[in-house]
Amino acid sequence: MYLYPSNESIMKIVIAIDSLKGCLSSSAIADAAEEGIRNVIPGCEVVKVPIADGGEGTVEALTEATRGSIITIPVHNPLMQPIRASYGITGDSRTAIIEMSAASGLALIPPKAGNIMHTTTYGTGEMIADAIQRGCHNFIIGVGGSATNDAGVGMMQALGFRFTDQSGNEIEKGGKSLSSIQRIDTRNQLPQLQECTFHIATDVTNTFYGPQGAARIFGPQKGGSETQIEELDKGMKHLATLIRQTFGKEIDNLAGAGAGGGMGGGCVGFLQASISPGIDLVMDYLHFSETVKGADLVITGEGKIDRQTLFGKVPVGIAGVAAAQNIPVIAITGQVDVDQELKQAGISAIFPIHPSPVSLEEAMQPVYAVRNIKRTMEQICQTLLILVKK
Amino acid sequence: MYLYPSNESIMKIVIAIDSLKGCLSSSAIADAAEEGIRNVIPGCEVVKVPIADGGEGTVEALTEATRGSIITIPVHNPLMQPIRASYGITGDSRTAIIEMSAASGLALIPPKAGNIMHTTTYGTGEMIADAIQRGCHNFIIGVGGSATNDAGVGMMQALGFRFTDQSGNEIEKGGKSLSSIQRIDTRNQLPQLQECTFHIATDVTNTFYGPQGAARIFGPQKGGSETQIEELDKGMKHLATLIRQTFGKEIDNLAGAGAGGGMGGGCVGFLQASISPGIDLVMDYLHFSETVKGADLVITGEGKIDRQTLFGKVPVGIAGVAAAQNIPVIAITGQVDVDQELKQAGISAIFPIHPSPVSLEEAMQPVYAVRNIKRTMEQICQTLLILVKK
Repeated sequence: MYLYPSNESIMKIVIAIDSLKGCLSSSAIADAAEEGIRNVIPGCEVVKVPIADGGEGTVEALTEATRGSIITIPVHNPLMQPIRASYGITGDSRTAIIEMSAASGLALIPPKAGNIMHTTTYGTGEMIADAIQRGCHNFIIGVGGSATNDAGVGMMQALGFRFTDQSGNEIEKGGKSLSSIQRIDTRNQLPQLQECTFHIATDVTNTFYGPQGAARIFGPQKGGSETQIEELDKGMKHLATLIRQTFGKEIDNLAGAGAGGGMGGGCVGFLQASISPGIDLVMDYLHFSETVKGADLVITGEGKIDRQTLFGKVPVGIAGVAAAQNIPVIAITGQVDVDQELKQAGISAIFPIHPSPVSLEEAMQPVYAVRNIKRTMEQICQTLLILVKK
Repeated sequence: MYLYPSNESIMKIVIAIDSLKGCLSSSAIADAAEEGIRNVIPGCEVVKVPIADGGEGTVEALTEATRGSIITIPVHNPLMQPIRASYGITGDSRTAIIEMSAASGLALIPPKAGNIMHTTTYGTGEMIADAIQRGCHNFIIGVGGSATNDAGVGMMQALGFRFTDQSGNEIEKGGKSLSSIQRIDTRNQLPQLQECTFHIATDVTNTFYGPQGAARIFGPQKGGSETQIEELDKGMKHLATLIRQTFGKEIDNLAGAGAGGGMGGGCVGFLQASISPGIDLVMDYLHFSETVKGADLVITGEGKIDRQTLFGKVPVGIAGVAAAQNIPVIAITGQVDVDQELKQAGISAIFPIHPSPVSLEEAMQPVYAVRNIKRTMEQICQTLLILVKK
């Protein structure tokens, strides 16, 4: 009934666990997990891959994975107030990892009705410009959590584009001006833009405009009224036409074009960006499928494993790559709500880390998480070896 | 590095998990665990052994294990008030499983200073007498949690012994009379007593009297003052002498004689009982070492696994027997506080069952426990099979 494990000599385990938001980085989690593994299988080859899904933790994971650096610079928040924001540059100095929420996020401004008409992605553009000045040619931009609905127009203004109305005047910032744009002038754009490649990371599949468009779906949570959303949606449709005419890019029905208040579509239209699920982008960038080759086991995980996990989150992304190579996957987590679906996605077993009834507050303490990740990994490894006697 | 599991055809897993006090019986837990196993390894041979450590849950476990019955009868509580108490008779009708706390327990009477002078084990004797009338010849008596310090004198009164003072009068009930006993008259004892075998289950190793004796160690928690404890201790020493003179039994330095307020020593002296750790007694009775023969894995567990677990509790008892046969053991639990020591005791891995941060109250709900025991067993079985590919 049973056969030897594939690798009879040295066992290889790959660790790729998402960060625990507000608690531990992907890298710190991997360290704790490695310690647990080594306590049980001292001779094990352990490969740690800091990982993220394009959302929070992506800058940290990719800079740590590539021994890169974090850059913190002055930029403008969605209401054009000065703030400081950070992005990452990978170890080879070629790729910038930017989360638009760092400069253009909803959490950066006080909630106020009508904000959505004025908020701009200008700050995100400033981060891109800064990275270009530092020599980056490749961009991974995590799109989501934005306060904006300006389709990336503000970002492009920071990169030298001019958007003018019928009088030839530069439009005001914010989604309210989309309908007034008559012309897109690219003459003053940063010249290096032409040599840059842009990859948009997003799980959102909404369109640029229309019933499933950016304004209608995400507008209300950004403080948009019914009338404002109507106006924004018209502006988006207008801009899509202008983009088609100016750049020959058709974004009208593109899945993901609505991400980040149209940032997805804007990046495709203005910057020839590609749109992918963040986890795929991150795994590609890190050559994850190469890394796992020959592994006996992959350990993944996420703070909370639920139905959402099935859609573009780390564990399922990791499991997809591992399953293609017939490598078993075990997940650890702070909370598990599903099971069967994840088995089908290639995750053999899921272990929550809690040793006893515990409050959410205590469970979010880094020292608690480290201790119990380590302990849980020890138990898993001991269990793995039970039926494969030495 | 790795070899096949011992059994290449049908896997055999034995389940022997202690009850979760106030939540689930050992048997109900085993059912949930079995379901989890079968969901992953449908062809598995699963053997469920209801188990207990001689304390709470022992009657239930042993009657369920042997398809026996629970008998509920009128008896007297420690203050000689009428109550109803239950004990078990095994499926072969030969063995009675009695917990002295059911009739003589501290929880049965309101706490009151001085109680310890008056409390009697008479009710426990009534359960024994009832079981004898029903044809039982073998007794497993869980000793602990008692309100008494009468050395089992009350129990023996219920079985026909007479304890008389220097005037030849029957003594009053309770520890206060121990010093007055001048003669033990066995002529009116239940005649079947001679053919009965008594096994005392206790983890307590205290002596009958003296600095580590029943009165000094357990007297204070039963409401005894310094003077009363002094008096009781003298009475115990006196009785030990009387037992030596009357029955030729030396209990003065016997470990466990102090259990249950001297019930341990009384049973040895009056009834030629043996004293063993409860888990050993239960495993012996159920021929556990026979049951596990050829098993690939034993699943055990306890509500809370901590340092206490190392001393006479179910998981370590089970692991001892399994380890002697080189069978790996995995424990599941509601709370784990130790780890390394349990590995040395033969437990390969311990898995708490909580899927997320949870309150103790919710964790004690039977439906929660059943669901998460099942889920945890599924994850364990899936992990077991990972390195032993089909």
